[in-house]
Amino acid sequence: MTQHKIIDPWGSGLLEDYEKIIKDFGLEIFDSKLFSNPNRIMRRGVVFAGRDLKIIADAIKNKKKYYVLSGIMPSNEKIHLGTKMVVENIKYFQEHGAETYILVADLEAASARGVTLEEARKRALEFHIPAYVALGLDINKTIFYFQSENKEVMNNAYEFAKKITLNEFEAIYGSADPGKIMAAITQVADILYPQFTERKPGIIPVGIDQDPHIRLTRDIVRRHKERKFFLPSSLYNKYTPSLDGGIKMSKSKPESCIELPEDIKSVKRKIRNALSGGRDTLEEHKKLGAVIEKDMVFELMKQHLVEDEGELNKIYSEYKSGKMTSGELKEIACAKMEEFMNNFMKDVERARKHIDKLNFVKFK
Amino acid sequence: MTQHKIIDPWGSGLLEDYEKIIKDFGLEIFDSKLFSNPNRIMRRGVVFAGRDLKIIADAIKNKKKYYVLSGIMPSNEKIHLGTKMVVENIKYFQEHGAETYILVADLEAASARGVTLEEARKRALEFHIPAYVALGLDINKTIFYFQSENKEVMNNAYEFAKKITLNEFEAIYGSADPGKIMAAITQVADILYPQFTERKPGIIPVGIDQDPHIRLTRDIVRRHKERKFFLPSSLYNKYTPSLDGGIKMSKSKPESCIELPEDIKSVKRKIRNALSGGRDTLEEHKKLGAVIEKDMVFELMKQHLVEDEGELNKIYSEYKSGKMTSGELKEIACAKMEEFMNNFMKDVERARKHIDKLNFVKFK
Repeated sequence: MTQHKIIDPWGSGLLEDYEKIIKDFGLEIFDSKLFSNPNRIMRRGVVFAGRDLKIIADAIKNKKKYYVLSGIMPSNEKIHLGTKMVVENIKYFQEHGAETYILVADLEAASARGVTLEEARKRALEFHIPAYVALGLDINKTIFYFQSENKEVMNNAYEFAKKITLNEFEAIYGSADPGKIMAAITQVADILYPQFTERKPGIIPVGIDQDPHIRLTRDIVRRHKERKFFLPSSLYNKYTPSLDGGIKMSKSKPESCIELPEDIKSVKRKIRNALSGGRDTLEEHKKLGAVIEKDMVFELMKQHLVEDEGELNKIYSEYKSGKMTSGELKEIACAKMEEFMNNFMKDVERARKHIDKLNFVKFK
Repeated sequence: MTQHKIIDPWGSGLLEDYEKIIKDFGLEIFDSKLFSNPNRIMRRGVVFAGRDLKIIADAIKNKKKYYVLSGIMPSNEKIHLGTKMVVENIKYFQEHGAETYILVADLEAASARGVTLEEARKRALEFHIPAYVALGLDINKTIFYFQSENKEVMNNAYEFAKKITLNEFEAIYGSADPGKIMAAITQVADILYPQFTERKPGIIPVGIDQDPHIRLTRDIVRRHKERKFFLPSSLYNKYTPSLDGGIKMSKSKPESCIELPEDIKSVKRKIRNALSGGRDTLEEHKKLGAVIEKDMVFELMKQHLVEDEGELNKIYSEYKSGKMTSGELKEIACAKMEEFMNNFMKDVERARKHIDKLNFVKFK
């Protein structure tokens, strides 16, 4: 086995892809020792990289002001497992002293996905925000706003646009068009919004595909001589892989993709059909054990379904040794998924009843 | 003399430049017979072109709803003579039934000229808006808004950005960068703002250098399949030429540029030094008469200082015949300018006292 820099004690395929990303993007490898009581995905190498993480670790240690910020894209009525991980990271920082900002990217939803602003607002209030609360966000400690209502964000976006050239934009995003530029610059203003009144560190937990927004923001901050913002830090989680073994679970392959919420029967079918690390025959499996790096169900349990390290270790050794079969592993995953999905749906329902307690930014 | 299509009974240099503009931009030649009681600059070929003017003429004739819209750029504390002409055209349409919208481009002023939004607002309220009122705008019939406060404009700009490609933008503006794109798309949303609640014709009186914004707006309207806007009409006035004979009066040549307000001593000095159509010697002048097309002071009188056609005709014939000398023409211009400037300053002062009566759009 090659020597990997990303720490993932349970092994996983695709590590080389992520190490290439770290190198290409100039990221720091995430070191869970930097943070006390790391959460499940931090402990397991699912959170694998970041930028300027020490600034955030120091803010936590020294009880200094800092913020965590993320956006909700209310374009459809489900969320990805990738979004679930982002919420878990937000929750971590919220529990470690961060001011928490959640913006509803209704403008982007309306522009990119053709839902109206009203529909986007309705979806955010009826599903996305309750889902975030169900996944652990403290509704009383979170500041929400809608992009379409935040004049400050718009006005600053207008100003920030002057700080980059078209070539620089194209270098970051690979291409440029007016719609993309407008959306990206608005995101920069969102990311810096908590600093409009006060300079302070902030951390943006994202999927790795969102890194261009972080780079653009940091470039604009560096160029802004008249206003001194803190360079925002960022934190990247790996994708939840597609159940057929691809690097990213995606709706474009519906049989390899699980969304929240989803009918449990359909979820179980997908899990049972997932790419497995089990051997071709039972005899061979008992003898050689599972190829865990290839097993998408184990990856799902590691990323999402098993909280306890002891329990995950036990499953790992039994499966790796061949004592547990791939069929048995899948049934454990199905049962855990059923429990998770039921709790999630109940928690969303409960959160929906408290939606009037949300702290929305009041705009003049 | 070549046959010109632009009607300018008193002649003027630079006509060929304007005919080239009409051809290159695909404009209609302005025909003052389309409008009843045309104003001074419409009658004299200073307003020389437009787009879809018949739609506006019909709206006036049939007493249909339509609007006139223009922007104030409060980046400095004076206005150009070109701006004065735009206000005179707004006034014309306001007096002929148009709903009148004036937006304060505070975002653009802040972004392009580095004044703060607060400073831009202060300048607009203390000088630019009173100046517009002094030049004839009816304060009770005009709707004002600040770009930075108009969420609707911002939200629509975000949407409109998706309707054009980078190549199309570059074809219109000659170049593209994020700041320029953001500013231009915001202007498109400004231009269409009166139609957000109701589709109706609108006319945008501008200097010819602002035509790219009109073209961009019309392109976006044509592509917007989901929302049906009326293609905005436009009206173009020529530049007030530089006192040294250049096509456009500009602050980059301060001795050839008059701004409002300006100390009358300095104005008189500039007029006296202006490029003249007078002959080299008095004898020659008496014999051959003035070359009026070259005379910047006559052009200034035609564009700005002499309202009455009979009076202008008289000056024209006396000067052309050589009876009036260039020095005499300049003294008439100086006297008229002094009267105008005194009245303007008094009227600005008076309007400033009524600034609390402005109709600002109230935003939620």
